[in-house]
Amino acid sequence: MAARPKLHYPNGRGRMESVRWVLAAAGVEFDEEFLETKEQLYKLQDGNHLLFQQVPMVEIDGMKLVQTRSILHYIADKHNLFGKNLKERTLIDMYVEGTLDLLELLIMHPFLKPDDQQKEVVNMAQKAIIRYFPVFEKILRGHGQSFLVGNQLSLADVILLQTILALEEKIPNILSAFPFLQEYTVKLSNIPTIKRFLEPGSKKKPPPDEIYVRTVYNIFRP
Amino acid sequence: MAARPKLHYPNGRGRMESVRWVLAAAGVEFDEEFLETKEQLYKLQDGNHLLFQQVPMVEIDGMKLVQTRSILHYIADKHNLFGKNLKERTLIDMYVEGTLDLLELLIMHPFLKPDDQQKEVVNMAQKAIIRYFPVFEKILRGHGQSFLVGNQLSLADVILLQTILALEEKIPNILSAFPFLQEYTVKLSNIPTIKRFLEPGSKKKPPPDEIYVRTVYNIFRP
Repeated sequence: MAARPKLHYPNGRGRMESVRWVLAAAGVEFDEEFLETKEQLYKLQDGNHLLFQQVPMVEIDGMKLVQTRSILHYIADKHNLFGKNLKERTLIDMYVEGTLDLLELLIMHPFLKPDDQQKEVVNMAQKAIIRYFPVFEKILRGHGQSFLVGNQLSLADVILLQTILALEEKIPNILSAFPFLQEYTVKLSNIPTIKRFLEPGSKKKPPPDEIYVRTVYNIFRP
Repeated sequence: MAARPKLHYPNGRGRMESVRWVLAAAGVEFDEEFLETKEQLYKLQDGNHLLFQQVPMVEIDGMKLVQTRSILHYIADKHNLFGKNLKERTLIDMYVEGTLDLLELLIMHPFLKPDDQQKEVVNMAQKAIIRYFPVFEKILRGHGQSFLVGNQLSLADVILLQTILALEEKIPNILSAFPFLQEYTVKLSNIPTIKRFLEPGSKKKPPPDEIYVRTVYNIFRP
């Protein structure tokens, strides 16, 4: 039996949360080794476990994968979440890249100065509502299917759902002008593997709090 | 005969230069439509030619591709620059992602305040010498082949060569401690398609100057 993937990252969302989402959506059980101190990071670095000295790192299928996108791509390829041909793959890739640009704002948000955090929520809402959500709303309205590409779940759906739900935590009515995205969010959330991930007790991480921010600074600040 | 790809971007390196590099390495002729004014950007946006309102955009094979990585991935897939199997693909993906993190520093450099630019050159040199180049030096030393993955040219080689040459423009001795990367740089530069791209008169863009910086601000600043 193949070993379960092991995720190396602090005990919080950050750049690893997308990996947790995709593994969960694919129905893959995984283990986590939480980084809590600088010494643990040094140990991974000194043991040559981190190709570019950085986490996220995921031990999977005998490899030590790094770089968030590369990890996501590998899992998506392995679990048929990357389309049926190059054209579908390219659409999925573009949708993922756009959504990751939006998600990046959420990932960096807790590390902004308190004064900048509220302004940044406004910026995120604008970006979501003006630039990103209209694209996905139009796609869903246009083809009337449940998923963004090829009428089956893909990496693009998983990352978009993650991003929508994380944005809704900050801006509850963010989808109010997007009826197709509202329906899509409900449908995706009811896929059994995803439904389990959204229930209490799963490996989904809570919104970043002060303890998470302090831990990240303690580990990564030079 | 298929139409030649058409690249939409300002007349400078920025995020499009990697796309130019990969097309050139693959031996693909392409055309460019240079953005020079805000009005040209608005026209592309209003005509729904830019999925997320942004360039780079590349018209290719009947699609309008956006997001730098998605464009690179599509071209690499099409021209066999993404390995022979999922394991090779994943290595290439990780090497590309690491190198793009380094290249991003170069892309942003001309837009820093003058006082910060010199400090950032030191930072880039450190990142290159401590974090990235040792990884690639070790790979090349380890397998004695001419390319990073699978003994044939891949997206990883193209992006690494682009990054090395751009860094050398700023820091001429950046490879002094890396003999295998030195040899690799010479060998790759002599591949006929790449050699032509490095010769005067190609579509390779010069280092960013004040005119380029001003043009970018004029087009993209709100």
